[in-house]
Amino acid sequence: MSLSMYQASVPVLVRALTALSAILKKAEAHAEARKIDPAVMLGWRLAPDMFNLTRQVQIASDGAKGCAARLAGVELPSFADTETTFAELQARIAKTIDFVKGLDQAAIEGSAEREIVLKLRGNDVPFTGASFLTGFALPNFTFHIVTAYAILRSLGVEIGKLDYLGVQG
Amino acid sequence: MSLSMYQASVPVLVRALTALSAILKKAEAHAEARKIDPAVMLGWRLAPDMFNLTRQVQIASDGAKGCAARLAGVELPSFADTETTFAELQARIAKTIDFVKGLDQAAIEGSAEREIVLKLRGNDVPFTGASFLTGFALPNFTFHIVTAYAILRSLGVEIGKLDYLGVQG
Repeated sequence: MSLSMYQASVPVLVRALTALSAILKKAEAHAEARKIDPAVMLGWRLAPDMFNLTRQVQIASDGAKGCAARLAGVELPSFADTETTFAELQARIAKTIDFVKGLDQAAIEGSAEREIVLKLRGNDVPFTGASFLTGFALPNFTFHIVTAYAILRSLGVEIGKLDYLGVQG
Repeated sequence: MSLSMYQASVPVLVRALTALSAILKKAEAHAEARKIDPAVMLGWRLAPDMFNLTRQVQIASDGAKGCAARLAGVELPSFADTETTFAELQARIAKTIDFVKGLDQAAIEGSAEREIVLKLRGNDVPFTGASFLTGFALPNFTFHIVTAYAILRSLGVEIGKLDYLGVQG
């Protein structure tokens, strides 16, 4: 028995995006309770040359739709990066989940050996669907989810690893 | 075509651990160049109630060997959490990579539908091998790799996402 490309991609992306949405709801409530300007929280970074919270959420969304669209062999949808509020980020996440869930399961299942070429810093880097998913797309997507979590943890938002994992402990 | 349980686990763990090792080498060099006490860097945290860098590396190691051992159906090796230097953390990572690489590939390939039960906050949470890998073990492992990276980024160590991804851009 082996893993299905679909099971290894779409539910993983949806679980993490759903967890991100829940974490951002806790962050918004924290900002309200502590009278923190939401814009300050959304603009927070772990280092001056890292992306802020808003951008981490946008890139996580890009990572999810890019991963799933490439596996399904469809054109990548372009979302304008115009979100400036928690509500708009929640809408972006919901739209991303809808897109990912709406893709053709059979097309994704058939992607394990399909060639996928990425441009990284100007160079073409060839992957198979399987190596793209496990060696690039999921680690990259997860990077931005965890960084968003880390920004909020560094601000004192009361979240824990099980919020990120989306698992009932 | 589908994904192999082995390809979706062991190379993913090894790639991330190898990247973590390279990132820690850059961190050590940064500490030396800036005359930062390595113990201060290893004890750094993103928030007072988060684990420090040393512990993040230890837990990433635990996550990798726990993931691979459970999939292979062998007993989890216990590593004493006694590392206090970069060199000791490098040895821990190398030992983890050796363990993961040494497991029986066929046993891991056959794990997709095997039941794996985790204790989370005292509750038994049942998984299949496939759902354990994609829904818990890899997100959990990656969480600690990214958090280690984020700690070092917040300290000004000159690393970028491609160091984490272990991809040549």
